[in-house]
Amino acid sequence: MAEIVTVERQILKKNDEIAAENRAVFRDEKLFVFNLLSSPGSGKTSLLEQTIARMFSKYKIGVIEGDVQTDLDAQRISKFDVPVIQIVTKGGCHLEANLIQNALANFDLSGLDMLIIENVGNLVCPSNYDLGEAEKVVVVSTTEGDDKPVKYPNMFRVASAMVVNKIDLVPYVEFDVAAVKKNARSINPELEMFEVSCKTGDGIDSWCGWLEQKIAQAKSGAAV
Amino acid sequence: MAEIVTVERQILKKNDEIAAENRAVFRDEKLFVFNLLSSPGSGKTSLLEQTIARMFSKYKIGVIEGDVQTDLDAQRISKFDVPVIQIVTKGGCHLEANLIQNALANFDLSGLDMLIIENVGNLVCPSNYDLGEAEKVVVVSTTEGDDKPVKYPNMFRVASAMVVNKIDLVPYVEFDVAAVKKNARSINPELEMFEVSCKTGDGIDSWCGWLEQKIAQAKSGAAV
Repeated sequence: MAEIVTVERQILKKNDEIAAENRAVFRDEKLFVFNLLSSPGSGKTSLLEQTIARMFSKYKIGVIEGDVQTDLDAQRISKFDVPVIQIVTKGGCHLEANLIQNALANFDLSGLDMLIIENVGNLVCPSNYDLGEAEKVVVVSTTEGDDKPVKYPNMFRVASAMVVNKIDLVPYVEFDVAAVKKNARSINPELEMFEVSCKTGDGIDSWCGWLEQKIAQAKSGAAV
Repeated sequence: MAEIVTVERQILKKNDEIAAENRAVFRDEKLFVFNLLSSPGSGKTSLLEQTIARMFSKYKIGVIEGDVQTDLDAQRISKFDVPVIQIVTKGGCHLEANLIQNALANFDLSGLDMLIIENVGNLVCPSNYDLGEAEKVVVVSTTEGDDKPVKYPNMFRVASAMVVNKIDLVPYVEFDVAAVKKNARSINPELEMFEVSCKTGDGIDSWCGWLEQKIAQAKSGAAV
């Protein structure tokens, strides 16, 4: 009974050209950059708060916040003493490389160790837009269902790491952590996986350890 | 510090023309059609399961499922004896009116009382695409944060009703039901609101009562 309808994917050539320019800038600065992606409300900003709180005494961190409307996320981050820029897309459903390039004009990258780009909450469109980052990280919350990797495969295909957030809610929801990992591995066998609770702090150390490795790699000029 | 960057919205003229054709078909059939929207994992399909279980002995219901990949949702719905068509967008982040028009070619609408279109999980793009439906209904889950209406205002502006799902999880999450309602009303004062748990069944009767009113209006030929 199911009918399959194909929708053509846009060619993203111009975006990819600008992303390559951004990537060259980041490489010259030996700066580790990651692009944080998820559904609305999975806890991207909470993860950033936990991450910055854990790492900012040791590393210089900058943040670019992307939202459809409001600077609520930038306000949450600005309580830390880190530079933060809010991009408001005014209805746009994803960040594009040129928006990042424009934002960089307002950023002093010298001396930064890590730049975090928090994308618009959307599991579909942002997966198609390279911003010049070294890694894409997808957050999935235990309240969303363990079928998300197979329903939104491109996001999990392009990501280097998956952070399973709200692990403290597992007793109250129908979510099988082993199943989400298996589903994610079926799409991307290389995916790094972390289980965290931004409420209790569980698992944040392990996640920050991975970021520290990536920062060290970028400093050493290792290919990203 | 925040920089505001504007991304132009596409003109959606052709989509709106086809949506008007769909709407005329639905009106001729005196059929109530609603478009169900939310983030991934908010519980759209669970709400459909509860709704169909409650209503299918009294009403003839059809379902169109939209997903980026997989027919998992159509499989869940097909356990009921209702016609269901799965549209797979193959990476497309929203349904468009022409996809619905194509799907209708495979649907016998005569005798149907209600057609439910479950959109792709995405709080941004689907809000811009009229499919010809009478009403848009947005589901927001208590695990997503009560700031969603102000962060994704267009979705709440175009919706007629908001269903707050996973109300059973309120004791375990930081979510203020009064705040999400206030935020939603600040965007759209006319919004109908329902609090439900698809796990316990709480609130489903009230939600189904609203649907029954809408079905009766469509039957009577009231303007939609």
